[in-house]
Amino acid sequence: MKRYILLTPGPTPLPPAVSEAMARPILHHRTQEFGDLFDAVLDDMRYVYQTQGATVLMMTTSGTGSMESAVVNLLSPGDKIIVHTTGAFGDRFVSIAKAYGVSPVVVAEEWGHAADPARLRQALQANKDVKAVFFQHTDTSTGVVNDLEKLAHEVREQSAAVVVVDSVSGLAAEPLKMDSWGLDVVLTGSQKGLMCAPGLAFAAVSERAWPLVESAKLPRFYFDWRAMRKSLKNRETPYTPGVTLVAGQAEALKMIRHEGIENVWKRTAELARYTRAWAGRQGLSLFAKDPANILTAINMPAGVDGDALIKDILAKEGISIAGGQVQLKGKIIRIAHMGYITKADLDAGFAALEARLSKAGV
Amino acid sequence: MKRYILLTPGPTPLPPAVSEAMARPILHHRTQEFGDLFDAVLDDMRYVYQTQGATVLMMTTSGTGSMESAVVNLLSPGDKIIVHTTGAFGDRFVSIAKAYGVSPVVVAEEWGHAADPARLRQALQANKDVKAVFFQHTDTSTGVVNDLEKLAHEVREQSAAVVVVDSVSGLAAEPLKMDSWGLDVVLTGSQKGLMCAPGLAFAAVSERAWPLVESAKLPRFYFDWRAMRKSLKNRETPYTPGVTLVAGQAEALKMIRHEGIENVWKRTAELARYTRAWAGRQGLSLFAKDPANILTAINMPAGVDGDALIKDILAKEGISIAGGQVQLKGKIIRIAHMGYITKADLDAGFAALEARLSKAGV
Repeated sequence: MKRYILLTPGPTPLPPAVSEAMARPILHHRTQEFGDLFDAVLDDMRYVYQTQGATVLMMTTSGTGSMESAVVNLLSPGDKIIVHTTGAFGDRFVSIAKAYGVSPVVVAEEWGHAADPARLRQALQANKDVKAVFFQHTDTSTGVVNDLEKLAHEVREQSAAVVVVDSVSGLAAEPLKMDSWGLDVVLTGSQKGLMCAPGLAFAAVSERAWPLVESAKLPRFYFDWRAMRKSLKNRETPYTPGVTLVAGQAEALKMIRHEGIENVWKRTAELARYTRAWAGRQGLSLFAKDPANILTAINMPAGVDGDALIKDILAKEGISIAGGQVQLKGKIIRIAHMGYITKADLDAGFAALEARLSKAGV
Repeated sequence: MKRYILLTPGPTPLPPAVSEAMARPILHHRTQEFGDLFDAVLDDMRYVYQTQGATVLMMTTSGTGSMESAVVNLLSPGDKIIVHTTGAFGDRFVSIAKAYGVSPVVVAEEWGHAADPARLRQALQANKDVKAVFFQHTDTSTGVVNDLEKLAHEVREQSAAVVVVDSVSGLAAEPLKMDSWGLDVVLTGSQKGLMCAPGLAFAAVSERAWPLVESAKLPRFYFDWRAMRKSLKNRETPYTPGVTLVAGQAEALKMIRHEGIENVWKRTAELARYTRAWAGRQGLSLFAKDPANILTAINMPAGVDGDALIKDILAKEGISIAGGQVQLKGKIIRIAHMGYITKADLDAGFAALEARLSKAGV
């Protein structure tokens, strides 16, 4: 018998009330009841995004689908864009843009470092006609957090470009204030700080961004934000949404609203501090130079294969910890702090790690 | 207190075991456990599709997303295609193709009529260089079923085009034999005959279709079948899938396999016959000239607004029946028979309809 503990950066564990809501009898998606649920989700999402003016759109897709939706709804062939990347998910914006024939100017930070506003300024000055600048809020591949307020300010100073943020892993975990920071498009998914199962994604789109959406020439159908906005009048989505996920998301958002978004940020920060302190006591160093609160990336000591370690922990103890991606495979482990992850979950993970590290002579 | 009864053609009601599976503790999607679940789903889907040779791909999206995936993975700009449409969902293929700059040759049947093989033959003879022909299995907007075996045979006789079928509402309800009928791509969604919640979609892709996928030039990222096929080796999906939905789908497929797909088809056909007989006794006529088993579209008598009728039934009795779409709004009602819908559900719907029709003097 083993309890399954998720310390991975999405999907994160679900509060029992969310699981319960997802198991309720299914609603048809063109009814008063669904409209009420959908409205509540969008209203609570505006609160989580800290926006009054943006339009929140909901899609049934993974976080990556929402990233693609931003590319196809904002751009036309030949448009100039900047992608300021700090890891694997920033690189994904580059891949999506290229798949659609748009060649981005790429400002790439060394993995583990946050986006440098000075380097962004240089790129903006060299590319005055840029249409959009793409950032991550947090990059789960490296565990860094970007200073979005400063970066968005830099964009505004230098150009008329819209600021697009992938906050799939950051929202409802790490502070974000869409309106006061001047962010134009913020993307997210249901399965991380939002404490729901994966399968829903959201885009908050500012009034400033809508003219681009109307004039963009890249092809789009399922991800067409114009159709999504039009359907909002009928309190529905253009195509059948993941209704059980919407029921779960409504429940999770109620919990977030009840706790207060600032308290959610504070709770996540406390778990991050707790984990960094544990790593310090073990003599383990952090991978990120600008560590996020959503997850802690920890360097493995020389001679320890992080991937083998976490595979053993998952198999024997049912605790799921993430490894490194791409060039970091085996070299780091990543412990998440967002959503319904608790101190007790972390303690269980720490104990499993300590036992194996001490056996390895660390 | 009212019990909520779904007689709509998707989402359909969920078996309790499926709801229970979706409420289980969430799995991480890059684990042995998820791989086992995913493998079981794909294996059972091959059985439901009645295919040995096709590759089954899974996406987290609505049925419409799977339709878009077929367009972008099979076609290049300038390609010639035929869409043989029998209703609103066939028309959707036309809209998707146009959004991507592909102008289809459209063979449109009058609503309520199935696709006519003779008209298809004419279109094929006039367009020898056609790359793909798109059909619906069943069109839920009109309640017709197409003779896919005959239509696919016609395509094979006249051209080298691949046969693409939208079976979002047909699969696991209406007979379909992918291999023996010579279908190349069959698309479906989780929320109808497959008895799971909405949010997952599938594409079965024959060996004959893969060279087109490799050479297609339309832009694609999230819906890229090449990435999906590559990930199958690791028993995973390229991006975070709807894991709770996969757990539910695995459970529903176990039930289908246990019942036997032929028995599922038979059960659905019996409910359709039962509903047609009821309509006959009420003096109501059927809308479809070639009625499907997945749902029955019934003409409303002159002077009766079908939309007002079903709105009242939903509000007062919690029974959800579908109305007409586009030009059929208010003129027909649609009662579904697929998935976990039972005779008892139908009886409740019939009673609610009878009470209101007799009040209207019908």
